[in-house]
Amino acid sequence: MNSKPALTLAPVHDIIARRWSCRAFDAAKTVSREQILSLLEAAHWAPSCFGDEPWRFIVWDKNSDRAAWEQAFGCLVEWNQNWVKNAPVLLLVTANSLFRKNGQPNRWGQYDAGAAAENLCVQAVALGLMAHQMGGFDEAKLRETYAIPAQYACMAMIAVGYQAEETVLNDELKQLETAPRERSPLGVLFFENGWNQPVKTE
Amino acid sequence: MNSKPALTLAPVHDIIARRWSCRAFDAAKTVSREQILSLLEAAHWAPSCFGDEPWRFIVWDKNSDRAAWEQAFGCLVEWNQNWVKNAPVLLLVTANSLFRKNGQPNRWGQYDAGAAAENLCVQAVALGLMAHQMGGFDEAKLRETYAIPAQYACMAMIAVGYQAEETVLNDELKQLETAPRERSPLGVLFFENGWNQPVKTE
Repeated sequence: MNSKPALTLAPVHDIIARRWSCRAFDAAKTVSREQILSLLEAAHWAPSCFGDEPWRFIVWDKNSDRAAWEQAFGCLVEWNQNWVKNAPVLLLVTANSLFRKNGQPNRWGQYDAGAAAENLCVQAVALGLMAHQMGGFDEAKLRETYAIPAQYACMAMIAVGYQAEETVLNDELKQLETAPRERSPLGVLFFENGWNQPVKTE
Repeated sequence: MNSKPALTLAPVHDIIARRWSCRAFDAAKTVSREQILSLLEAAHWAPSCFGDEPWRFIVWDKNSDRAAWEQAFGCLVEWNQNWVKNAPVLLLVTANSLFRKNGQPNRWGQYDAGAAAENLCVQAVALGLMAHQMGGFDEAKLRETYAIPAQYACMAMIAVGYQAEETVLNDELKQLETAPRERSPLGVLFFENGWNQPVKTE
């Protein structure tokens, strides 16, 4: 199994360091209802501007309703279907563009939805699972199939399950699965005191 | 100290369940350089669409440059200044609206920046610290003071430090600090198989 923990200048908690977007999932292992609720509760307790909770998630569990899971699967682009076929749980993350309390535009809707989804992905690692977010889906199809109101933006679909050996993947995906994770040098993205001033590392 | 762990239908990892946006910070305790790097590395290893890393953070450490910290503090609204004055570390989170690789609009810029910031907040709990994100800042002042390019949206400022007893707060803030954390019922935000169909909890 490809572990790939983050390479960091200072230690980072294991469930953050070991999260990565694997594509090799074990088609034989289901995710329990307790685990699904644990994933959703992690998202549920993310912070949000004015506590507005702008995220809405839909979950599909292949084990409890295969036809429903397949309908959601059909909204993914083919590239993702090549590997998501083995993932027992799918989710959709949407972001409310309006505040619930007053209907005014919420400029933090997508930002907060991203936080909720990341909590879910980190919680997956804590449960021995992996979660992989995708932008490759057919938004128009999702919107039509599920009658998603216009004020909600479809931000990501997430595949969740137990990780498998890369041997379950085709050759092209196998290469991606075993390649090292990469990030820019820290100081390119993280500044100190002023814009473009790299953070001091000691 | 007010602990307030999330009340959940299924267990959630401690560093997610114990994260909340406290306002009582200990002005006497500094955050070490190693801790600051650990916080930034947690953000750095968040996922992003096409691996574009659309976030840019600025950090201000009162302990290493007080004047710089005060300049950033001056960009907060007065309500937040009332309690942020005790927090030793401040950050700004910005989101790139364009992909680095081709300059095209990135519809996931803010979503991904929210994920990176949440990783930082969860890592803070792992380090025994607390992180509180704020939308209450003067964006025009930030943009002018730090010459932030137009393509980057200022999404949040974050106060980080060690938690203190609520006695360090004024009466109005003290009440907020001891009030219970609240969330909508899970099924209002988390659906199963279709829009507005509450997730099955058993």
